[in-house]
Amino acid sequence: MAATPSTPLLKDELDIVIPTIRNLDFLEMWRPFFQPYHLIIVQDGDPAKVIKVPEGFDYELYNRNDVNRILGAKASCISFKDSACRCFGYMVSKKKYIYTIDDDCFVAKDPSGKDINALEQHIKNLLSPSTPFFFNTLYDPYRDGADFVRGYPFSLREGAPTAVSHGLWLNIPDYDAPTQLVKPLERNNRYVDAVLTIPKGTLFPMCGMNLAFDRELIGPAMYFGLMGDGQPIGRYDDMWAGWCTKVITDHLSLGIKTGLPYIWHSKASDPFVNLKKEYNGIFWQEELIPFFQSVTLSKEATTVQKCYLELAKQVKAKLGKVDGYFNKLADAMVTWIEAWDELNPPKGAITAVNGPGPVVKSK
Amino acid sequence: MAATPSTPLLKDELDIVIPTIRNLDFLEMWRPFFQPYHLIIVQDGDPAKVIKVPEGFDYELYNRNDVNRILGAKASCISFKDSACRCFGYMVSKKKYIYTIDDDCFVAKDPSGKDINALEQHIKNLLSPSTPFFFNTLYDPYRDGADFVRGYPFSLREGAPTAVSHGLWLNIPDYDAPTQLVKPLERNNRYVDAVLTIPKGTLFPMCGMNLAFDRELIGPAMYFGLMGDGQPIGRYDDMWAGWCTKVITDHLSLGIKTGLPYIWHSKASDPFVNLKKEYNGIFWQEELIPFFQSVTLSKEATTVQKCYLELAKQVKAKLGKVDGYFNKLADAMVTWIEAWDELNPPKGAITAVNGPGPVVKSK
Repeated sequence: MAATPSTPLLKDELDIVIPTIRNLDFLEMWRPFFQPYHLIIVQDGDPAKVIKVPEGFDYELYNRNDVNRILGAKASCISFKDSACRCFGYMVSKKKYIYTIDDDCFVAKDPSGKDINALEQHIKNLLSPSTPFFFNTLYDPYRDGADFVRGYPFSLREGAPTAVSHGLWLNIPDYDAPTQLVKPLERNNRYVDAVLTIPKGTLFPMCGMNLAFDRELIGPAMYFGLMGDGQPIGRYDDMWAGWCTKVITDHLSLGIKTGLPYIWHSKASDPFVNLKKEYNGIFWQEELIPFFQSVTLSKEATTVQKCYLELAKQVKAKLGKVDGYFNKLADAMVTWIEAWDELNPPKGAITAVNGPGPVVKSK
Repeated sequence: MAATPSTPLLKDELDIVIPTIRNLDFLEMWRPFFQPYHLIIVQDGDPAKVIKVPEGFDYELYNRNDVNRILGAKASCISFKDSACRCFGYMVSKKKYIYTIDDDCFVAKDPSGKDINALEQHIKNLLSPSTPFFFNTLYDPYRDGADFVRGYPFSLREGAPTAVSHGLWLNIPDYDAPTQLVKPLERNNRYVDAVLTIPKGTLFPMCGMNLAFDRELIGPAMYFGLMGDGQPIGRYDDMWAGWCTKVITDHLSLGIKTGLPYIWHSKASDPFVNLKKEYNGIFWQEELIPFFQSVTLSKEATTVQKCYLELAKQVKAKLGKVDGYFNKLADAMVTWIEAWDELNPPKGAITAVNGPGPVVKSK
């Protein structure tokens, strides 16, 4: 099926969420692509530190003090000293779409040498349907020059609404600490010119480095968990969000795409530090995957919030025995939904008195 | 994980099966890649016609008289006047691997302009494991320069044995008649440099144009059904085989890969003729897909044959009411397995008295 000839900018419908602990010099390279958009910067670590944002960007910045002030006791569900804090940005956004990117990700080039407008490709992915119910061997059938192949049932060709667009990374691949240690020099040089839907019933490792989603369709499932400071685990924030999100999109008949666009991931993080953050996760995920593969949600779970609360209950019931951490996480999942609903009241409802509002806004 | 540095030829372990009604001039272009292998040519249509095979190829050729002589009454399970007859070649082969290709498929070029050795890539695909239980976002983790990404459970990194390698097509895409009619000029120019596993539980449209498989692992499931002469359907032979094969590989924890290699598909078949062949299939597949999506095999089904016979029983029970054709097809599925076992007796058993043997062999 023919793609739309030009991709809409969605300027007033998309926020870019960036978690960071440093000055955002990396935005200079993204200026031609990001400047039209509003940025939500979630400052991690010491709130006293001043984060410099290049001139000309429209942004709001939240540090830990803001998170605490806005969420009160519920701020406990937002991680500290871990990029998992980014999900606070999803919560305070009022836009339909979110794009989140790490501050060590730069503009990649396509095989012809042209700068890749990652955001434009994400928008393309989100605005065209997914095909979770049957695999198309020529990949995304909605791309220009592609279609459904022979044998693809016609009743499934409308596809499903796309909730998530998962982009990839050239240069430094997103490896775990053991693989980093074993293959310190491996670089991803393979540009795979494809976008595809992760089939229904299949889990995948969702990376938060270069990720876009439809907040209205799936936002409340994009909780990045309890990681970092005071927690026995790190670097599983996006994985956790991905597993929960996949189970819920499957239940609600929504789609998740992966593949294009690529960003250029500049710097491998320290594998020794990563190993310390990951080792519990590496161990626990052997029980988490069978859990997520077999979990079912009830017919009554008709909204993302309802799905997520059901999931939290099952996390407590079934993963609590793996480690006490999962009881805490299950409680945080419930808190997250409460906080989400407080900041995002159903349309027509009265907004909470202590609404959000960052300390720093761009002039 | 690092790929093997050089791919074994498997010269004595692989047959190339080609269904045809014409002289095999197309082999000239494939000579550098195919000449080391033994060819099994299944001549369709008039057995009196002489098929010319270019000099220097090692082959055996079976026409309809041979099929009838070798299979006797069981020859009824082999289609006539349809490329579905190719599966007879799978049955008479004594090799571990099969590669099957259509005679309108030529050598494609990779983006650097180099001729693609399709068979070598299929061998690579078949000799490295598949990953049906969890999706890897960097595609085949066993390829050079790739690996499992962060969040991929370590217990699943051994993968599963690969039973099928499904290759793709540049130039003329494998579209159904309605799509051909709507987009007569569409060409596939997108070279996607990826191999990936179709996840467990996901069906796909398997095309027989450029297909390799491990006969020992999955051969008896590769039945291309009753198509063509005297049948109410055509162009669903490979689809049928693909759906049956996928259900059985899922049950037996085997893998199916799709993607590379590409061949150059030279000529679109006539969409009007195709529509006549396909229209029942287009209609029926709307009921076939839910059937294959929900079918389950018993714990006793521990071999491909046992799986296939269980499937045949369910086809009769559940699809017989869609059309009487499926009763006939279910019977033919049973006949196919009987014929397979006759020509491929368990190792150590005595070979049947009237063993195979083609009329024409290369000198």
